[in-house]
Amino acid sequence: MRLSQLFTKTSKTIPADETSKNAKLLIQAGFVHKEMAGVYAYLPLGLKVVENIKQIIREEMNSLGSQEIIMTSLQRKDLWEKTGRWEDASVDVWFKSKLKNGTEVGFGWSHEEQITEMMKDYISSYRDLPISVYQFQTKLRNEVRAKSGVMRGREFVMKDLYGYSRDAKELQEFYDSVSDAYLKIFDKIGIGESTYLTFASGGAFTQFSHEFQTVTDAGEDTIYIDSDKRIAVNQEVLSDEVLKQLGLERHKLKEVKAAEVGNIFNFGSAKAEQLGAYFTDEDGNDKPLFLSSYGIGVTRLIGVVVELFSDERGLVWPKSIAPAQVIIDRVGESSETIKAADLLYSKLLDQGIEVLYDDRDVRPGQKFADADLMGIPLRIVVSDKTISAGQFEVKKRTSTDVTMQSLDDILKDLAVKE
Amino acid sequence: MRLSQLFTKTSKTIPADETSKNAKLLIQAGFVHKEMAGVYAYLPLGLKVVENIKQIIREEMNSLGSQEIIMTSLQRKDLWEKTGRWEDASVDVWFKSKLKNGTEVGFGWSHEEQITEMMKDYISSYRDLPISVYQFQTKLRNEVRAKSGVMRGREFVMKDLYGYSRDAKELQEFYDSVSDAYLKIFDKIGIGESTYLTFASGGAFTQFSHEFQTVTDAGEDTIYIDSDKRIAVNQEVLSDEVLKQLGLERHKLKEVKAAEVGNIFNFGSAKAEQLGAYFTDEDGNDKPLFLSSYGIGVTRLIGVVVELFSDERGLVWPKSIAPAQVIIDRVGESSETIKAADLLYSKLLDQGIEVLYDDRDVRPGQKFADADLMGIPLRIVVSDKTISAGQFEVKKRTSTDVTMQSLDDILKDLAVKE
Repeated sequence: MRLSQLFTKTSKTIPADETSKNAKLLIQAGFVHKEMAGVYAYLPLGLKVVENIKQIIREEMNSLGSQEIIMTSLQRKDLWEKTGRWEDASVDVWFKSKLKNGTEVGFGWSHEEQITEMMKDYISSYRDLPISVYQFQTKLRNEVRAKSGVMRGREFVMKDLYGYSRDAKELQEFYDSVSDAYLKIFDKIGIGESTYLTFASGGAFTQFSHEFQTVTDAGEDTIYIDSDKRIAVNQEVLSDEVLKQLGLERHKLKEVKAAEVGNIFNFGSAKAEQLGAYFTDEDGNDKPLFLSSYGIGVTRLIGVVVELFSDERGLVWPKSIAPAQVIIDRVGESSETIKAADLLYSKLLDQGIEVLYDDRDVRPGQKFADADLMGIPLRIVVSDKTISAGQFEVKKRTSTDVTMQSLDDILKDLAVKE
Repeated sequence: MRLSQLFTKTSKTIPADETSKNAKLLIQAGFVHKEMAGVYAYLPLGLKVVENIKQIIREEMNSLGSQEIIMTSLQRKDLWEKTGRWEDASVDVWFKSKLKNGTEVGFGWSHEEQITEMMKDYISSYRDLPISVYQFQTKLRNEVRAKSGVMRGREFVMKDLYGYSRDAKELQEFYDSVSDAYLKIFDKIGIGESTYLTFASGGAFTQFSHEFQTVTDAGEDTIYIDSDKRIAVNQEVLSDEVLKQLGLERHKLKEVKAAEVGNIFNFGSAKAEQLGAYFTDEDGNDKPLFLSSYGIGVTRLIGVVVELFSDERGLVWPKSIAPAQVIIDRVGESSETIKAADLLYSKLLDQGIEVLYDDRDVRPGQKFADADLMGIPLRIVVSDKTISAGQFEVKKRTSTDVTMQSLDDILKDLAVKE
């Protein structure tokens, strides 16, 4: 895309009420627009990052054999009453409203109840199991505080997956395979090294639930990491007994702040029993379904990536989720320079590479600053100087080294995944 | 996808409260699940149709130079108060709720106000114009009645596009180009012949607004079509004066029921003035932006297509939006048949063709009935008989003719767009 045509602009001003680093940078770079606290619209570059993350997650979920659907925001009160999760006393993040006939409705902050009720129509026999479905859903949560930018939204995109199994053993096998898939996803997004499988408090059926926590000072959780074993314990369950059970030693743990980017819940058969979701087993007996649910905060991940990688010059996107792989900074307005930059732009597009082309009539300094602020992995300068050298001036966002490279070399570098 | 793995099933039962033909068929074929009146979840096959339609629209919007974004459902009361569209007396489809601190919020039934407020941050000069943005947004509308299945939802997906122009002339040029793009979209989706550009009541600035109405008895509007001139007049503006103005003759018009699949509004400068959205013109003067907005009901289109094309055997999808191009019905369980069907499945997938593969252990009659109910454009039967003939038994969904064809011939036919 040509920056002269992109309607967003980089900016030096940010909303006075914005305190989080991730939202400040995303707003300044023109990736998001703040509607109210915890509520952000995604502009063209921000939407690209969202879609790139979704695609990485989608591929892994499909590899698990999970099937994509999309449920609704509007929720029926009666379903959530059955599981005791309608009243504000038990769930304090509901947005609620009323139909014209007075019927109360809620807006989906989670979807276990709704999906399980639906699956009753499609699961009748053990032959239908195991099965899982997932969606990318806009969740609405009436958070009291929303001061962490896109890391804690009142409206945000989540991938949630729901697995139905015939018993605890089958559930555990699926649980482990999703857990592996999650680690792959965080690796691909570039935060694998900072992300820990974390033991947190469980529910009625399991001693622990599992979280995926990414170490960042912007996180709201405190966890204790064992860097060697690559696991962590959430503060809420830290005790000598738990450490012994997990084979961890207190003196090897490090206390850090972290943000929960994924979580896994094992509901056992409890929710199915509440909702009347049964199947017929091999012997003709009715058994309750075993439910597990698996979340990844898609838009939260964007905030975490910004917090982790950005620097004093702005955003820094990992290649895998960057809104573009390359930004071409055209320096100079001679017809030769314009011709050379246009040609490079079309050649890169022909190779299927996502490119931003700064063809604006602004000072080189502003172009360089904007390229850094937007965090595009590779900057290529086209100027009289580079034309006479027969090469391009190339700089990685994560480096200050400028090198001269031929187009062939640039294409080779771009083909390498990092 | 193998039907043995698809979690949805075709069904003969439908919700007792469902009266619309489109929702009945979509539910029976396993494309949607009804949550409450006017609120439907989209299952794997239904979601594919949604995404196919979105992609057709997206390509045309991008060709216009429009830029995709995604706004939020949560809406600020103060914005809509400025334009007099917050109170239920003026807009009766709001869902509203409250933040924890008591602040009232609404859920987006439309987005003109929010987008225009945002664009104030990005448009300052005539050099920024014209510009347009679009989104695929889940709209929430508190409809009193929702009896038309997916054609009138309380929750539905809409593509809405917002154009900002410097004056009435520039607006009109854009208006005409979007209008052309809309006709292309309806052609591609297969409803072009049944869809009419329709003159309807205008607003403060224009005598008429324009609707795109598709002729179907399931529609809620009454329009008068001139089949030769390919235009129509909505009942609400039908008068001798209007007919004269449009060069139409009453005796050539035919009264029909129709469903509005798209619409165009010209707000002139009124909304920008209410919201304080100005730009600086060539002479340094502040001028209000001219706003036009353009909607297409994505999920409504699905309902319209079902109403138009389905028959007594079930759904009938145009190739361009079908959830799969081909369904393979494997008849017989001999190892040769399984091998031949598996091979055909993988060969078609290798060609990038979307395929459903009915590998279930059910009677042939049920497979044929399900293939028809799901509306897949091409059915290919693999059986002992076809193997011995060295060809496949092929039937189009829209025909009862069965022909024997080689794989090469099948691939040639599939490459032709209809």
